[in-house]
Amino acid sequence: MAASTASRLSPPRFRPPSPSPHPPIRRSCFSPVRAAKLEAVLSIGTHLIPHPRKAASGGEDAFFANSDAGGVFAIADGVSGWAEKDVNPALFSRELMRNSSNFLNDEEVSRDPQILLRKAHAATSSIGSATVIIAKLEKTGTLKIASVGDCGLKVIRKGQVMFSISPQEHYFDCPYQISSEAVGQTYQDALVCSVNLMEGDIIVSGSDGLFDNIFDQEIVSIISESSGVHEAAKALAELARKHSVDVTFDSPYSMEARSRGFDVPWWKKILGAKLIGGKMDDITVIVAQVKTVVVPEDEGGDTEEQKGNEQGAAAVVASAE
Amino acid sequence: MAASTASRLSPPRFRPPSPSPHPPIRRSCFSPVRAAKLEAVLSIGTHLIPHPRKAASGGEDAFFANSDAGGVFAIADGVSGWAEKDVNPALFSRELMRNSSNFLNDEEVSRDPQILLRKAHAATSSIGSATVIIAKLEKTGTLKIASVGDCGLKVIRKGQVMFSISPQEHYFDCPYQISSEAVGQTYQDALVCSVNLMEGDIIVSGSDGLFDNIFDQEIVSIISESSGVHEAAKALAELARKHSVDVTFDSPYSMEARSRGFDVPWWKKILGAKLIGGKMDDITVIVAQVKTVVVPEDEGGDTEEQKGNEQGAAAVVASAE
Repeated sequence: MAASTASRLSPPRFRPPSPSPHPPIRRSCFSPVRAAKLEAVLSIGTHLIPHPRKAASGGEDAFFANSDAGGVFAIADGVSGWAEKDVNPALFSRELMRNSSNFLNDEEVSRDPQILLRKAHAATSSIGSATVIIAKLEKTGTLKIASVGDCGLKVIRKGQVMFSISPQEHYFDCPYQISSEAVGQTYQDALVCSVNLMEGDIIVSGSDGLFDNIFDQEIVSIISESSGVHEAAKALAELARKHSVDVTFDSPYSMEARSRGFDVPWWKKILGAKLIGGKMDDITVIVAQVKTVVVPEDEGGDTEEQKGNEQGAAAVVASAE
Repeated sequence: MAASTASRLSPPRFRPPSPSPHPPIRRSCFSPVRAAKLEAVLSIGTHLIPHPRKAASGGEDAFFANSDAGGVFAIADGVSGWAEKDVNPALFSRELMRNSSNFLNDEEVSRDPQILLRKAHAATSSIGSATVIIAKLEKTGTLKIASVGDCGLKVIRKGQVMFSISPQEHYFDCPYQISSEAVGQTYQDALVCSVNLMEGDIIVSGSDGLFDNIFDQEIVSIISESSGVHEAAKALAELARKHSVDVTFDSPYSMEARSRGFDVPWWKKILGAKLIGGKMDDITVIVAQVKTVVVPEDEGGDTEEQKGNEQGAAAVVASAE
């Protein structure tokens, strides 16, 4: 039994960057039959804060975001363990993102993030490995996702997290990873899923540096208070950074560690201490809001390929170099 | 940064009901290009335990499961608040499930659980409301899901939860619900998503009576120890039932309640008490495992409609009446 009946919730409180003088239209599923002239697009904001000790080199996260042709974004988080082998862990993640952006116009890639991941991985010659997530919005409002490892993605609708992807890991703190070595994972190991989005939905994606240091309720709260996607991405990254260097903050990371049996040494336990604190890390945040654009009927016939050919110039590949 | 590199995990420990003498084939994505002769199907086990005080009437959960044509299942959890209005809360959920099963052969429904939900809801004349989830596996291995409210669904791969849907609710303990009244939700409010599955993946779906009383690690553990889907569904339901009547068990439900600010009265707090215990409820569990079947090339051309027309007779609609 579910407990009780209730009426619909009020609309989400997230304020669009450019408030429209017209009342909002009903939240729709962008059905091509019911709303042939409406297409879903993403308004995207990004923010990257490197690990405090890696600020000079820019850290090992990289991302790209492209608002054209519906909207696509990706994040790669370079695996730091490579530094022990005198390999710069940032090279692999940055090249993987450059290649992902370069293959956006590829005909075979079309609307499939998993194929994009396969091609970008095959083209990457740097030594190293990275967790990676690629997400692409179709004009119908379907967000397609391919993820290897523990980059996260959540969708917020009507003030609650209504969709969230799970991390993949070999064991605690060792995520699945796309690698230059045969022992690593490939596009075939990716979590591949999709979710139908509605106008107004907010996507929050990030490296584990975000989700290890911030709780869902904090994300929802910041989204509700932000004036737009850029401000929201910055505010989320800054709160995660604040928590990450706070040794007294009981973070999602420390809670997870304790639930897996990790703890402080016995002599600290006797003194009442427990494993606690944020997790210092590179922090990448992408916030995207689903909007609709009205496309004149005669433009509605554009093929996905035609759209793709127009978007290359607008692609932004970034790290904090 | 992600912390360290690692090799692949060993295969999942879940033992199929009928062990094959042949070595398992590589886990594939059922790509129609790469494996044209392989089709994904579900082996489905179910178990329903009514609320202890509703055992005589069978409780208010209902479900259906159909292994034909890939595999489809659904769960509806009748909203108990209707009893206060002298309405039997079980009537709506049971009729909704009967109608869902009846519309499986409908041409428009085809492979879309959201359309199935729309048609089943429109055909339901009983007074009441219910949370509902419908999931359908395509031959390519894509599981399509439509969910309104807090029925849950998780996918377990290689011994970890790799996909999970989020509940939708108006406020704590008041989920979104398909209703006979205009104030309720409709198929348009559903969370609609899909996930690409691989051979060996395990789907665990259930009413909130399951997920309010059992933790992910317990689910993973039971799945790894069970000899098949029927045994797994029964074991999960029985453990959830055991926890549900245990007033000393710190359940997911009690933890969630405390995180939302609910607690025992102040005078109990002074005595050291805290809000704790399982949640007595109807408990429905569906466990499904993804398998592949080899289809001769000349049968590969069957249309989805042809397949659909063969499956009606095998549908099972159930409650604990």
